[in-house]
Amino acid sequence: MARRKKVYEGKAKILFEGPEPGTLIQYYKDDEASKADGLTSTANVAPISVASEGKGVLNNRLSEFFMTGLNNIGVPTHFMRRLNMREQLVRMVEIIPVEVVVRNFAAGGISNRLGIPEGMALPRPIVEYYFKDDKLGNPMVSEEHIIAFGWAAQQDLDDMIALALRVNDFLSGVMLGVGVRLMDFRLEIGRIWEGDYMRLMIADEISPDSMRLWDLRQAERADGTVPEPGPMADVYAELARRIGVLPSNVTHPAKASLIN
Amino acid sequence: MARRKKVYEGKAKILFEGPEPGTLIQYYKDDEASKADGLTSTANVAPISVASEGKGVLNNRLSEFFMTGLNNIGVPTHFMRRLNMREQLVRMVEIIPVEVVVRNFAAGGISNRLGIPEGMALPRPIVEYYFKDDKLGNPMVSEEHIIAFGWAAQQDLDDMIALALRVNDFLSGVMLGVGVRLMDFRLEIGRIWEGDYMRLMIADEISPDSMRLWDLRQAERADGTVPEPGPMADVYAELARRIGVLPSNVTHPAKASLIN
Repeated sequence: MARRKKVYEGKAKILFEGPEPGTLIQYYKDDEASKADGLTSTANVAPISVASEGKGVLNNRLSEFFMTGLNNIGVPTHFMRRLNMREQLVRMVEIIPVEVVVRNFAAGGISNRLGIPEGMALPRPIVEYYFKDDKLGNPMVSEEHIIAFGWAAQQDLDDMIALALRVNDFLSGVMLGVGVRLMDFRLEIGRIWEGDYMRLMIADEISPDSMRLWDLRQAERADGTVPEPGPMADVYAELARRIGVLPSNVTHPAKASLIN
Repeated sequence: MARRKKVYEGKAKILFEGPEPGTLIQYYKDDEASKADGLTSTANVAPISVASEGKGVLNNRLSEFFMTGLNNIGVPTHFMRRLNMREQLVRMVEIIPVEVVVRNFAAGGISNRLGIPEGMALPRPIVEYYFKDDKLGNPMVSEEHIIAFGWAAQQDLDDMIALALRVNDFLSGVMLGVGVRLMDFRLEIGRIWEGDYMRLMIADEISPDSMRLWDLRQAERADGTVPEPGPMADVYAELARRIGVLPSNVTHPAKASLIN
């Protein structure tokens, strides 16, 4: 096979040119995702994302599961199909340089900034924006900044909020079904041009690297008490197991550690 | 305890006066739910609702689970709390005499009426209305009828569609998380007056009696083939088991048959 052209390499993924124009191949690495954003830059919570062997394999499956589910209920995403253990075919989109964060329960950034106790239910889902720039630490911005600097138009923002809230309803449902609380998550959104017509779709990935998940089925302690909900342990494998996408035929060396 | 005043008795539930003004106690019976509606009046599909001992106990739990989840994501419902095995405390609402049906995949009524093969994905979720009148067989109506006869105003209908689509996103998520496809479901919606301000909320119940569920995790056949998705077997107990609300301490005689 001819060597593929690398388009972009981030901390957790590599993008290669796809087999057809307008497509990309998204390769999932095992490395730790970026933490310099509103979700994970927190001093007093266990990091969501820890580098672990096989993580990329599981995120590939998990993101396939969530994106397919969203496509099926009419929320457009860039996901086309999974190709193999670590790769999926996606549509090439123009990424809007603003991460959208939806928070249902206080944790991490919002608890630190506003002094809201971790775990407290927010009065309603709160949508935040972060400017995508690792060097700047992905700073929080308001609609005012986004429109003034031309990162997105008001109509885009309205559409982005509507998409993000639909994703929140759906993901909250998936998680509740398997005993997990969706505390918050971040989305990347991209544009696709079809002639003169532009539309937005969910891009990047939806996985434990982009969600903060608390476990509502904590194991009993030795003294018989049941702990309060808290960060989910072994989140990649445990979530994949609960929703039924844990690969049974993993052929790489990390197999044993995934199933533990 | 003084004998409670019965407010209404339907096929699957009884409503009693609640302990405080503006509340009702909703008692779940084991009897078969009404089938004379757009969802279940179908010749070529196994009925969703079959009378079975313990069904009321499970629907009480399942509806608690779904309504609590909806309340938590900001979709208002009449549900306040579960009182015991068969009863829950709900807010008294003025029921809008129109059932809202949301269909994601063709089955039952829409397949019969429009000749769409059972199981086919619809191009987008389709919202239908049925006039709530058992004697008339709950006939399908359009917005035109609803507004002309004063059952609801245009603004109510807009709000009802928005609520129904949020419920669809959430329930589709819960179901996908546990390997189930939400084919379609029906909702009842009620009004509450708070001074001059009126708002709508989900009423009645959300349970296998109001949803058509197909199983995406069908057991292998004896010959090793896996059947296509189809109606979920033993739907009350199986759904309760998958989402983790199957009571472990059922004390009525039907216990054994529930767990089988």
